[in-house]
Amino acid sequence: MNFAILSFIIGFILQFEALFLLLPWIVGMIYGEYHVALIYLATAVVCFILGKLLSFRHTGRFKELYVREGFTAVALGWFVMSVFGAIPFVLTGEIPFYIDALFETISGFTTTGSSILSDVEALSYASLFWRSFTHWIGGMGVFVFIMAILPMMGGSTMNLMRAESPGPSVGKLVPRVRDTAKILYGLYMAITVLGVIMLCLCGMPLFDSLCTTFGSVGTGGFGIKNSSIGGYSPLIQNAVTVLMILSGVNYTVYFCLLSKQFKEAFSIEEVRWYFLIIFASALTIAWNIRPLYATLGETLRYSFFQVGTIITTTGFATTDFNLWPQLSKTILLLLMMIGACAGSTGGGMKVSRVLILFKAIRKELSMMIHPRMVKKIKMDGHNLSHETLRSTNVYMTAYFIVLFVSLLIVSLDEYDLTTNFTAVLATLNNIGPGLELVGPTQNFALFSPLSKCVLMFDMLAGRLELFPMLVILLPSCWKKY
Amino acid sequence: MNFAILSFIIGFILQFEALFLLLPWIVGMIYGEYHVALIYLATAVVCFILGKLLSFRHTGRFKELYVREGFTAVALGWFVMSVFGAIPFVLTGEIPFYIDALFETISGFTTTGSSILSDVEALSYASLFWRSFTHWIGGMGVFVFIMAILPMMGGSTMNLMRAESPGPSVGKLVPRVRDTAKILYGLYMAITVLGVIMLCLCGMPLFDSLCTTFGSVGTGGFGIKNSSIGGYSPLIQNAVTVLMILSGVNYTVYFCLLSKQFKEAFSIEEVRWYFLIIFASALTIAWNIRPLYATLGETLRYSFFQVGTIITTTGFATTDFNLWPQLSKTILLLLMMIGACAGSTGGGMKVSRVLILFKAIRKELSMMIHPRMVKKIKMDGHNLSHETLRSTNVYMTAYFIVLFVSLLIVSLDEYDLTTNFTAVLATLNNIGPGLELVGPTQNFALFSPLSKCVLMFDMLAGRLELFPMLVILLPSCWKKY
Repeated sequence: MNFAILSFIIGFILQFEALFLLLPWIVGMIYGEYHVALIYLATAVVCFILGKLLSFRHTGRFKELYVREGFTAVALGWFVMSVFGAIPFVLTGEIPFYIDALFETISGFTTTGSSILSDVEALSYASLFWRSFTHWIGGMGVFVFIMAILPMMGGSTMNLMRAESPGPSVGKLVPRVRDTAKILYGLYMAITVLGVIMLCLCGMPLFDSLCTTFGSVGTGGFGIKNSSIGGYSPLIQNAVTVLMILSGVNYTVYFCLLSKQFKEAFSIEEVRWYFLIIFASALTIAWNIRPLYATLGETLRYSFFQVGTIITTTGFATTDFNLWPQLSKTILLLLMMIGACAGSTGGGMKVSRVLILFKAIRKELSMMIHPRMVKKIKMDGHNLSHETLRSTNVYMTAYFIVLFVSLLIVSLDEYDLTTNFTAVLATLNNIGPGLELVGPTQNFALFSPLSKCVLMFDMLAGRLELFPMLVILLPSCWKKY
Repeated sequence: MNFAILSFIIGFILQFEALFLLLPWIVGMIYGEYHVALIYLATAVVCFILGKLLSFRHTGRFKELYVREGFTAVALGWFVMSVFGAIPFVLTGEIPFYIDALFETISGFTTTGSSILSDVEALSYASLFWRSFTHWIGGMGVFVFIMAILPMMGGSTMNLMRAESPGPSVGKLVPRVRDTAKILYGLYMAITVLGVIMLCLCGMPLFDSLCTTFGSVGTGGFGIKNSSIGGYSPLIQNAVTVLMILSGVNYTVYFCLLSKQFKEAFSIEEVRWYFLIIFASALTIAWNIRPLYATLGETLRYSFFQVGTIITTTGFATTDFNLWPQLSKTILLLLMMIGACAGSTGGGMKVSRVLILFKAIRKELSMMIHPRMVKKIKMDGHNLSHETLRSTNVYMTAYFIVLFVSLLIVSLDEYDLTTNFTAVLATLNNIGPGLELVGPTQNFALFSPLSKCVLMFDMLAGRLELFPMLVILLPSCWKKY
């Protein structure tokens, strides 16, 4: 392990966090919350000084940034960011226990949206803003952000981006990593601005529009009302549905559309399956829940919203789906695992991985019927590399191992299986709410500190696609060269 | 598809079933249940005639027994066997609905042990015997049995054995398939005889000993009392524990021991992990349930019995573990999935597959830390072939796909998630009882016919290691050459 690089990168992250923390300071000043604003400013100053101290001795050129350093830097970077991002919640007294504040912040940065708060409306504007803004930072990723705006990185920065970006293989949109990062953040920014404008036009107040857009575009899910999105007008609810579902689409589609490669945009199999799954699930659920609601429009609004919020792993809610019939709940449970498209801001296993696994099974079965047939797995018309299939398999194994080990530890708290299982699913897939005691109207405060630590690990593991968080658990990762 | 071969094999199976059906006839005659006995005899005669009709035109030499024919023959063979094995239950009126009788029989042959009966003590001796004897037939497999006693098979009978034997790769103990089959059945027979003698010596009546041994050695789990094994003395309970755990061991161990290859016997990694998992789980559960029982001995007896019955996928019970604390229940849940050793009569994913998957993850992680290191996955000191790893991955994917699709269909019945999830787990892993509404003191009668069909499919899929049951679902499997 090259500790000099590690310390430089962590220092850098902290300086950026200082910058981000100025936003809630401004919000606090605007709303006259001077005491709260001061706390955000003070935290920003501390982050900046500490960041400078950690990074001042390094040139910032990364000749030696191997996978190990890349993964460790990203895993530690996200953790440190959360450690400092949690401080204002404790100092303002809004979340008195540090472990709860850390849970909330990790849930924010990882775009999970699981909360330990029972009354979010009691928070100050500054804290509500910071809480939602962490989703926005985490959505596209802080390392991608740094790469997009700074020319400082040397050779193998791809290892940082690979560790942070969701999906089985990071597709470079353009040959240079930095340009790819720029394009991604440009698109992200554009969708965000459009989202805010759309919500404002639908009649949402500006502050609410900003926070809700951060939560939707980052596929986070922290609401600023106790009823999440349930209290807003049907029009706003539908607008949020659209915004969430569009944020779960592979960003390559938007890049292709903007560069007028329409054929490429519509030929991406993952995206077609993503929409197919959404429609099939939402219509099945609508049929299943039709006795609960008065009109067809209402039924469809609720079913599409809940399907959108779960498959994109956002986690807003407009109704308590814990009260829905079992078939609908089971569909939502499976959508939790599938997750959004690769190359989007969403979590979960990703549609493309599920697709690859299904194709592998189909190939295996037809090889049993025609043993001498040579068949390749194809994706978007190209042969799937052995490497991608292998890493997909390894990912799935790691996914279920983390899932079941977490379930085992969380079960020490003696809640029921559905609560434990969906709590782990909701955090590992960066969704937010689960079922039963962690359902949409409930929160995660009930768990013991040990379980909270496990769930925090799961949130980070889910957001960083497992391996960075698993690698840093190995002692051999920390050996000096 | 070569339908001539298929019809020959199915016919052959039916003739053997006729032979097996004579045993409950004898039992019925001994206990004076003449009416019931007659029904078993009549079924046997029908099976025999039908079997002869189906097979009389074939020589019995299989030059063309490819994987496709092997898998289809095994899948269909097991299904047809169950279809006819279920008839006596209906004709005697003991299980009036045919679908329930079929469920019970498939549960028997696949060594699952899930029952739709609430009062087994109301059954006749002949039916109790038949029910338990199906476990014994299914435990080692009917095709292995036929291969062991008949010299009729030609070239590629390995494809039959591969489809029927549990485990990631069928190890031939000796070069010839037929000799391997003979050895396996010899060992199976020996363990059965020793089991009956041991249980008789512990004070169990002969009939009970026979049925309980069939259930233990075949890792089935049908009890002949409503309290399963709970009503017998502690000594008998412990004896059954030992018998079950020994039946979950890879039979290669016994072969090595008998041929004095002691070093080989103790160097099998899977078996060492199997015992390690049993001890670790049983001791953790004992610690977790200590407030529920009076003495340490009682606590250990219950925890070892339940761990043994679940990991070997037998499914007997001595206590209602549905009332145990959540940690214990979660451990049992994970043991359900792990299952017994490959090459035993147990079900589940198998310890060796789990081991292979863990090793693959460990290798992947250390390759991230040392990218230029060449590392091979080793098992029992040998390099693991790429083929085995691939088939393990494919198996796991297929396993979870079957699991989740089944869960979705079963959830149409609107029972709670734990009931549905554990019902699917209990059948797919050939265990027997699940949790909540399908817990050890409950039964599977509550499900709709559709769900019962899904669960029957899962039992067969679990017993035949998924692929035979999946292959026959593909239309291209049934095309003529």
